[in-house]
Amino acid sequence: MDCRCRELCRCRAVIAIFANLAALLSMAVAKADSGASQASTVDASGTVHVQALDVPFSSFASSESKEAFVKRTTGSREGPPAGADIKTLREFYNAYNDALAARAKELYPVDIKPQVIGGVRTEVITPKNGIAEKNRHRVLINLHGGAFLWGEGAGGEEESVPIASIGRITVITVAYRQGPEFKFPAASEDVAAVYQQLLRTYAPSNIGIYGCSAGGILTAEAIAWFQKRNLRRPGAIGTFCGSASGFGGDSVHVAFALSAQTPLVGARTGELSFSPYFSEASTADPLVLPINSSDVLAKFPPTLLLAGSRDFAVSSLFNTQAALTKVGVETELHIWDGMWHAFFIDPDLPESKEVYGVIVKFFDRHLGRR
Amino acid sequence: MDCRCRELCRCRAVIAIFANLAALLSMAVAKADSGASQASTVDASGTVHVQALDVPFSSFASSESKEAFVKRTTGSREGPPAGADIKTLREFYNAYNDALAARAKELYPVDIKPQVIGGVRTEVITPKNGIAEKNRHRVLINLHGGAFLWGEGAGGEEESVPIASIGRITVITVAYRQGPEFKFPAASEDVAAVYQQLLRTYAPSNIGIYGCSAGGILTAEAIAWFQKRNLRRPGAIGTFCGSASGFGGDSVHVAFALSAQTPLVGARTGELSFSPYFSEASTADPLVLPINSSDVLAKFPPTLLLAGSRDFAVSSLFNTQAALTKVGVETELHIWDGMWHAFFIDPDLPESKEVYGVIVKFFDRHLGRR
Repeated sequence: MDCRCRELCRCRAVIAIFANLAALLSMAVAKADSGASQASTVDASGTVHVQALDVPFSSFASSESKEAFVKRTTGSREGPPAGADIKTLREFYNAYNDALAARAKELYPVDIKPQVIGGVRTEVITPKNGIAEKNRHRVLINLHGGAFLWGEGAGGEEESVPIASIGRITVITVAYRQGPEFKFPAASEDVAAVYQQLLRTYAPSNIGIYGCSAGGILTAEAIAWFQKRNLRRPGAIGTFCGSASGFGGDSVHVAFALSAQTPLVGARTGELSFSPYFSEASTADPLVLPINSSDVLAKFPPTLLLAGSRDFAVSSLFNTQAALTKVGVETELHIWDGMWHAFFIDPDLPESKEVYGVIVKFFDRHLGRR
Repeated sequence: MDCRCRELCRCRAVIAIFANLAALLSMAVAKADSGASQASTVDASGTVHVQALDVPFSSFASSESKEAFVKRTTGSREGPPAGADIKTLREFYNAYNDALAARAKELYPVDIKPQVIGGVRTEVITPKNGIAEKNRHRVLINLHGGAFLWGEGAGGEEESVPIASIGRITVITVAYRQGPEFKFPAASEDVAAVYQQLLRTYAPSNIGIYGCSAGGILTAEAIAWFQKRNLRRPGAIGTFCGSASGFGGDSVHVAFALSAQTPLVGARTGELSFSPYFSEASTADPLVLPINSSDVLAKFPPTLLLAGSRDFAVSSLFNTQAALTKVGVETELHIWDGMWHAFFIDPDLPESKEVYGVIVKFFDRHLGRR
């Protein structure tokens, strides 16, 4: 064989290898790309292997929310720089919350008065259209969201201003201590200090407490803390986008994908490692996660739970509701299809207005009047 | 150039093409295979392109349900043969329901008496442990599931037996007319006939109506039908795994994958084409889907909605609750994380027992007593 003949033989061999490889790769691509039309498979451990799928924005959510969803998930997605320090994080979220709170105040005129209550900084928010007669002896405490790291001020205002205005009721939003400077149970202690001070003026049954995300978790924790301190329970509470249960269930596996969000640190394993506030706390402690004790849960007041169906925390709400129901506590659960974690801090979404209405009516139904 | 030279040239060209192709295919495979770890992308229409992902069985659901889930989704998955005629379908589902109803009767001893009420065949189910004093003047009507095609008899019993026994109350399950032999509104007429007959003995406020899947849809339809016939509304209703809204929202895109089920015909487009019963009905008709009319919804009694979070109908429940809330109707929503469509027809699951408890308490709270 001359050299040309040898090269030709090698060439033919290489072509044969490539042809086989290409065929294998084509099959792999076909398998991986067939996506939505392929059925899931379930293995012996119960894990579902879901193929790639396309999920349109919920046909049951508003066009305004669809627009907001596209804006927040496409193009130059805003967020703090990766690995940002606490100062940078707070600057970022303060600016984010400032814009939402300003818009809330435009839509819902209120007076806001900073006030130290029980040694804790708060803002007392009253509606410009006046407090309703039935609410003269009632008050709501708001515990803002923000991962137990940020959210003081504007974060509390965006959750309180619409409720104060629509409900024609006083809302006191609490600047509780957070991480990384402070550790559990500093925030619980602060909520108890404010609550105890308010008990001098209000009957416990006339006080409601609510919060979103970290504030939803803290609301549940505060009820456990009040029990430890032998304080009478408030009339009703609302735990939104976070509650008495750790994160877990289906939503920590599905909701981040459906809302195109980066998974929250620790959420999939039910840890509270998203915030250094809990670095010395145990998730087995009922003061941290009241779901650990049915005795603690059994003494909860009527509890409102609400979230969007694409909230990574929504399964923890289902879990909390089931546990509260088991021990005879009255609950009210509302879910907005297709909506994401803490969506109602945006006061311009029609779904947010529905949320405000549900919150106002719930406390009106459950709080005492005199 | 001799012939060998030309072949060598062609060989080299072919190798170059294959090399490029292989590189492209490799990239495509890498993209498609990176799966769960890759973030979703959202396009300008709001559609989320979700990568393949693995979802463990919900950490909030029971081990018994995990076992049942694995059993129903792996190995020789039971189901009627594809394209089966109505006779075969009914034989298959009757056998399936017979086993569940037999187990329910083992766990919850009852007496079952066939009775024609208002010209309609029913089964009257009473608890062997006696009707509670407070329930002497109360009755529940059950409308069984089964796609408006099957479910008469054992299908109704599996939904009624645990409620009659735990609630110590009479439950009447109705063998309403179904497709393909009958068309809308035959079933609504049958429910109204039974209800009217019961109104001779019971105050409307002492009557509750509930159903699962097709029975949940029919319960909502019956309320609209009663309005058309100027019948006073019952004291409370329960619409489970199906309600006053057409199918839609996120669950019709996500839940089939999460529960490893074949998508229900028409569910993704909100049609009722899964059953020939609706072949001549319009989804815009409030008598078919009461969500079409806020006037009709506003006259609904207190409504219990419940489902598993992996139920393809769960978004239609969220949508119904939001619409009922908007018009001031009291609702109670309960969701069991990780559970599938109509899971509680299996009386051995701990979650099913929770469901029965919720149903019994809801009607006890809302029905009149004398």
